[in-house]
Formats: sequence, C-alpha cells, structure tokens
Amino acid sequence: MKLQGVATRSIMLADDGRSVRVLDQRQLPWRIVFETLDSLEKTQVAIQDMWVRGAPLIGATAAYGICLALSEDASTPRLHQAYERLLATRPTAINLRWALDEMFQVVEPLPPSERVAAAYARAAAICDKDVMLCQAMGRHGLAVIQAIAREKSATPKQPVNILTHCNAGWLATVDYGTALAPIYMAHDAGVAVHVWVDETRPRNQGASLTAFELAEHGVPHTVISDNAGGLLMQRNEVDLCIVGADRVTRNGDVCNKVGTYLKALAAYDNAVPFYVALPYTTIDPTMAQGSEIPIEERDPREVTTMSGQCEDGALRTVTLTRSSALNPAFDVTPARLVSGYITERGILQSDALLSL
Amino acid sequence: MKLQGVATRSIMLADDGRSVRVLDQRQLPWRIVFETLDSLEKTQVAIQDMWVRGAPLIGATAAYGICLALSEDASTPRLHQAYERLLATRPTAINLRWALDEMFQVVEPLPPSERVAAAYARAAAICDKDVMLCQAMGRHGLAVIQAIAREKSATPKQPVNILTHCNAGWLATVDYGTALAPIYMAHDAGVAVHVWVDETRPRNQGASLTAFELAEHGVPHTVISDNAGGLLMQRNEVDLCIVGADRVTRNGDVCNKVGTYLKALAAYDNAVPFYVALPYTTIDPTMAQGSEIPIEERDPREVTTMSGQCEDGALRTVTLTRSSALNPAFDVTPARLVSGYITERGILQSDALLSL
Repeated sequence: MKLQGVATRSIMLADDGRSVRVLDQRQLPWRIVFETLDSLEKTQVAIQDMWVRGAPLIGATAAYGICLALSEDASTPRLHQAYERLLATRPTAINLRWALDEMFQVVEPLPPSERVAAAYARAAAICDKDVMLCQAMGRHGLAVIQAIAREKSATPKQPVNILTHCNAGWLATVDYGTALAPIYMAHDAGVAVHVWVDETRPRNQGASLTAFELAEHGVPHTVISDNAGGLLMQRNEVDLCIVGADRVTRNGDVCNKVGTYLKALAAYDNAVPFYVALPYTTIDPTMAQGSEIPIEERDPREVTTMSGQCEDGALRTVTLTRSSALNPAFDVTPARLVSGYITERGILQSDALLSL
Repeated sequence: MKLQGVATRSIMLADDGRSVRVLDQRQLPWRIVFETLDSLEKTQVAIQDMWVRGAPLIGATAAYGICLALSEDASTPRLHQAYERLLATRPTAINLRWALDEMFQVVEPLPPSERVAAAYARAAAICDKDVMLCQAMGRHGLAVIQAIAREKSATPKQPVNILTHCNAGWLATVDYGTALAPIYMAHDAGVAVHVWVDETRPRNQGASLTAFELAEHGVPHTVISDNAGGLLMQRNEVDLCIVGADRVTRNGDVCNKVGTYLKALAAYDNAVPFYVALPYTTIDPTMAQGSEIPIEERDPREVTTMSGQCEDGALRTVTLTRSSALNPAFDVTPARLVSGYITERGILQSDALLSL
C-alpha cells in the first residue's frame, strides 16, 4: 500500500538484487526507517528484535535470510545452519517454520551452484503468493462492505464504519494485509469507509501501526480506547467488524489478539456483523476447539509501561503503576459469535471451513 | 483505609480545626502529597484541577469550601459567591450541587455569627454519612463474597477473584469506596480475596488509583489490560465482578466508565456474577432507561497520550499516535446483564430498586 505516497511492500529486494529492505517497525509511527538486510546475521536480528512482525512478514523475511546465507556460502552445512538460526529467532511463529521448510525443500536437493538463484526465486514466490492471498481475501471482503454501503445509500454522506482490533494490515503481511485488505480495496474502489481503530493495549499495535498505515494510504480513521467499541456499537456507529486471526480451530473458534472476544460479544449483542479474515494456512486442523489453544503470556512490563514520543521529540517509556501485572496475549472468540470467515477461497461459515 | 500503614480518609479536618487536608491525586501512585486547603480559592482549584475526583469526594470537598469561605466572611453575599464559584468548578458532577444545596439550606437561615460552626458541623456530617453509606454497601457486598468463598472452600488456597473497572474506592469517596468497600471488608475479615484491576484506559484510574489504594491497604491484586478480562473469565479465573456507577436509570441500566459494558457482556457469557455498587443517590428517577443518558465526550488527547514515570523519576506524557481520536467517557450496561445492585439498603434486583 502507499507509504509517503509511493506504493510499498513491507519487504522488497534492494537495487543490488541481493539485499532486502524492510521497515524498522519499532520506530513507527514516529520514524520511517528502512533497514537493509545484507546478511543472515542481520536478518536474525531483524526478526528477533521485532523490526519486522506479523506471521506472514516473518516468514517472508526468513525466506530471504536463507537467500542471504547461501549468497555467501551455498554449502549444505551453511544451509542447515541458516535454517536452525532463523527458526530460533521466534520459536512460536507457525509461518516461520513453514517458510523455512519450503525454502529448504526447494534448495537442499540442488547442487550448490544452483541454490542461490533457486532460493531467491522461491523467496520472491513466497512474497508474491502472500500478496495474492491477501488480494483474494480483500476482494471477497470488499463484497461485504459494498453490500453494507448499498444499504446505507439512503444516507449518502455516511461512510461504512468498520471497527478493527490490533494490526492485521500490510505491515503484518507483505502487502494489503488480512483484515485491512477489504478496507483498502473498498477505499481504492471509491466506497466511503471510516475505520474505528482499537488502540490495542498493551502493545498498542492499533494506535501505532494500523492508524499509521491507514493514514499513509489516506483511509479515514479514528483511534479509540479498547473500552469504547461497545458504546459505539450501542449507538449504531459501527456497521461491521473485521479482525485477523492467529489461529482458527476446526470448529471455527478464533484465537486472536486479546480483547477480540470482547468486541465479538458486543457485536453480537448489537447485531453488528463480525468477520474474521484469514488465509487457509491459519486454520489448525489438529485442534478441535479454541479451549485447546495454549495462550502465550508475555512480559508484564508491556502492561505496566507505555512507549511514545515526548514533547522534545524523544521516544521514551513511562511506567504506569508499581503493582504487578498479568499479560495474556490472546483470547478465543467462539465460532457462534462470528458472522463469517473472509478467506482466499471466499466467505465461509464455520461449518464450511474444513469442507473446502 | 490504610495509607502508609495509617488509617486515612481522603479528606480530613487539619489540626487547626479550620483547614482541610486532601491528597493531590494527580501525583498518585508516584508521590503521596497532602495539600492543605485553607481558602475558598484553593478549594476551587483543588476540585477544578482534579487534585480530588470522584463524585462523593467532590461533594465533601465543596462542603468544606463553604466552611472556609464563611470562616473569612460569614455574610450572605459571601455565601452566595462561594456557592456559585464552587458549583462552577465541575459543572456536570451531580453530587457537587447536592452537597452545596445541603450546606446552603442549613447555613443561609442562620445569623452570620452562627454560620461557621453550623457549616463545619454539616460538612463533617456529609463526610460521616458518606462513610456510613459505603460501610453499609460494604457489609451487604461482603455477604456475596463470603458466599463465594464458602463455595470455593474445597480448594482452600484459592482466593475469591474479583474483577473491577476504573476506581470506585476510598480515593473516590471519603472512605471505603463503593465497589471496593465489600473487598476491603472481606480482606479485613480474613476472607482471601484477589482483585483483577482493569487498567481503565484512557485515564488509567485502575492502574494508577485502584492498584495504589489496594496496595496501600495490603489487598492482593494484579493489573491487567482492559482487553484481558474476557479471557480470564473464559478460564474461570474470575469469580465475581464489582463495579461502581455514575448514574442508574429507573429500569436499572448502569452508566459507568467506558468499558464496563464489555466486561458485563463477558461476565454474562461466562456465568460470572456481575454486581454494581451504588448509593441510592446515584439513581436518577427522572430517566427511564440508559439510552436517555447523555455520554460525555472528553479531550481526545486522553486517548492519544499516556502519562507516567520515566526511568529518571520524572513524570512525563508520551504521545502514542498522530491520528485523531474519539474519547467517550462512559457506556451503558443494560439491566439484563446485572446480577444485583449492592446498595446501602441491601442487595437488590433491578425491579426492586425503586420500590424501596
């Protein structure tokens, strides 16, 4: 999507045809800093220290990490070493292992002299495939937004108001995003949309990333506290919710950023459609239902502190309380609260998710 | 309740028998600073600049503001002036007008020579009555907590886990608080309790005030993001919710700090009892239902910024986003989601609220 007016992907091959350029997302929304990854080691740091985040983008970055390692030394031991090192950067990210396995299977059988070219070709294909998946989700979700826009056409100045939680945009993928893809497509197609952006405590991905990328692309939006969405639904100021997913179980239960469940409850209580956007790779066929999903507990300091920009322009962290905190990162939205699943294969109900 | 180990009220007559001492709550939890209010003017500032907040405490402070004005000049014009100036400090607080009217009606008919003593007596009575109301709510709510503790007695090491939102503790009243009164009484009675404290964005009254006062009194508690309560209820880690109320309509709908409704939905979905603690003065008999309540919209900067302590000890404000924000301060929890109302007259259902 657009960044400073220019169509941009979250990861791009550099002009030298070897290095890759990524945004240092830790500095958003305050500083737009592109970093050039020109070695395996720097790629490890970029994933581990969260210059890049979001499962699809982590996978794409790791794929290029294999390319960079092989471009220095295309031997089989180096390939194994690169695989292991990259896998260790974020051990819980499912896309990371998937992308590394994909790279390994393509490259390993080849003679070393052919590995570098094959690796770059496959890494590019992984990125392009991710964009195609997001575009497909975007097209299917666009139809939902257009239908609501038609219903609202009696009040032509009213945009379709869409609430989203956390960041499931192009900064988390290679381009378009999952939950934000339908919104970008609607905006680009001239459908008037306005996005309510949950700030998404404790890490504030809504206020710092979703608001930033919507602003850069020119999509009207307003940041709200995570507490405010229920009131807005009570006042009929939300037409539709779209969120992403970290994992979806066989029965359609949705594991996503903590707080998603509360918005789904409010949507159900106010008859607001609640959609989950996900590529099929997010479905975990090994799990029957959401209660089986282990919930990651993150550092309590994410709750007890907040980072941002001070008046002097410096980025600082403030502490909010001396008390201890608990920081579960995800919750589970039961399938009964989900109006539909926006996938690359179309919009499905929970009972159809596994039959396609 | 206890502050630095000493039983403390949020407002107290000073040793000179004329001035009053209040905490500067803006500096909590970082600095415990008592301010002495010794004039009408300083009392105005204390209310206006939110050294004191919480409807009952604002009322009590205003009552002493009348005393301080009269102690300098007990004339009728001065009484009128003090009334008007204090009323203008926070024009929307309903307790403020109530306390000022109460003071005016007692003092105005008296000859000036008798006004000062009568004013101090009535201000003290207003404070004592507030404490009695809170103690009565505390006793009734204690029975609810004790009943849950008995049910849990098969697992004796498990405390009763209570979730609360915002600050409805002694810092918002004169002592005990409304929602926190049952918790303090249970703790003091030896019932093992543990409180989940919603941080309560955007102003963070949970993380900065509720967590502080629970810590000072020694009540076990854990701060959580506002997003986390639903997950905790899904995992059976919440036995009970207790919140305060800013206004309750005739049918039992509850206007309280924004985000309360989301927790009530989650409690209902997980069969967790959800109680609202309120004195009868919070019931607005002029309103039939919650949809009639005007919702205050506050400065969007409360959403786009956060204040806290930096590593160097300085209190600073950080900005979180460049985007614009909306900041509705309250939401409405429908009566159908409320298990019971903890009042000074007992625990009631919505249909009994107005029949007592």
